[in-house]
Amino acid sequence: MDDHEGAILASRRAGDTWTLREHTLKSFGDALDHLAGGVVVMGQLTLTQVTDAVLAITRSDVTLAQAIVEKDAVLDGCEAEIEREAIRLIALRQPMAKDLRQTVSAMKIAANLERCGDLAKNLAKRTVALADAPASPAMGVPIERLGKLVSERLQDVLDAYARHDVEAAEKVWRADKEVDQLHDSLFRELLTYMMADARMITACAHLLFVAKNLERIGDHATNIAELIIYELTGEDMPDSARPKSDLLAGG
Amino acid sequence: MDDHEGAILASRRAGDTWTLREHTLKSFGDALDHLAGGVVVMGQLTLTQVTDAVLAITRSDVTLAQAIVEKDAVLDGCEAEIEREAIRLIALRQPMAKDLRQTVSAMKIAANLERCGDLAKNLAKRTVALADAPASPAMGVPIERLGKLVSERLQDVLDAYARHDVEAAEKVWRADKEVDQLHDSLFRELLTYMMADARMITACAHLLFVAKNLERIGDHATNIAELIIYELTGEDMPDSARPKSDLLAGG
Repeated sequence: MDDHEGAILASRRAGDTWTLREHTLKSFGDALDHLAGGVVVMGQLTLTQVTDAVLAITRSDVTLAQAIVEKDAVLDGCEAEIEREAIRLIALRQPMAKDLRQTVSAMKIAANLERCGDLAKNLAKRTVALADAPASPAMGVPIERLGKLVSERLQDVLDAYARHDVEAAEKVWRADKEVDQLHDSLFRELLTYMMADARMITACAHLLFVAKNLERIGDHATNIAELIIYELTGEDMPDSARPKSDLLAGG
Repeated sequence: MDDHEGAILASRRAGDTWTLREHTLKSFGDALDHLAGGVVVMGQLTLTQVTDAVLAITRSDVTLAQAIVEKDAVLDGCEAEIEREAIRLIALRQPMAKDLRQTVSAMKIAANLERCGDLAKNLAKRTVALADAPASPAMGVPIERLGKLVSERLQDVLDAYARHDVEAAEKVWRADKEVDQLHDSLFRELLTYMMADARMITACAHLLFVAKNLERIGDHATNIAELIIYELTGEDMPDSARPKSDLLAGG
């Protein structure tokens, strides 16, 4: 333990805002693996929240929806823990080059996962709102298709992260457009339902946000792909080249 | 300059991913002031983007909207610069307690501002989409009201940050509900327009997202208020106590 580490330990013992981990990690490589392991676990929890949210909305399962809302706090806790640990590593070890990129990228991937969790929670809340809507269009199939596509993106990018696989991350990054196109066609379909039957308007308005939230989860998968590529290669993906269908002013 | 700083400087000169600032800051207090100054400048740029986006949408000003879209890259650059500088400070100086909270909070406030910028850009894109819609309801006044309320929140929280004013930050934090209530009433009003006249449906669908994006900017102002309170007091605001109207499953 060097002086800095000693000083920081002392500060923690004096009741600072961080929780010091019980064990002292032997090498920076071990510490990084530990941090990345936390991101992988958080990723799996996030993916479950997202796939459950798609199930809840397509099956109108209000009980499942409520469970998703309750479980979101776990992801908030994971993000806070990963951020604390990353900042602790930066302060204690002054990582450089690829080590630094891996540390910062773990923190930023956790932030993207936390936002996916928020979006899953929001989908769950929409499930409850939709259960009260007077009439709903037959949108289960297209919503499920978009939900599956987005879940696969998230699964693929988490696999790429766990395997340090640049090519797999690039594949996710290039597939962003497919999600956007499916979202845009859903958007138009929902407007058509609204125009055909005014009783559908409330349900369709919620479904517009369901589709948008799924698209945003896809955007986070793309962000995570960019972070993995940067972490492993030191190269930024060109922002202007990001394959993005912009037809319906998404966001 | 200590050994760590020397090592990191050498690494930068060897062509690492960070840009080292030209000057060497004398004290940690100076370095923190410099970082906070960057956040204040970024905050003013963000506020201008948001108020311009509200102007563009209420006046159907497509030229202004295009300028907003182009200027968004400046905010992305600000965020990246503040993040790099914060991480550099954490690695070089190992700040603790309040110093660490201030450093991390600058980085997280910049991330919130960057997202406000994205939302302003999205509002600008919706301005263009709305200009092409077949018919629009007379929603200029309520959208402007929500836009002004949200801009004021952002202005107030940026003032609180610049003045290190906990009470002002708490005031912004408590006012979150007002934005949510105005959003919810706008949401209902838009559904009513859609039900009354099917030609309005496309425009109203875009306006639902305009209202939601403004509400989300308000949420970021609340997040920033929480970060300021944490930075200055070390206390988290209780999440369960966050004053949030949840009637319409926002997000």
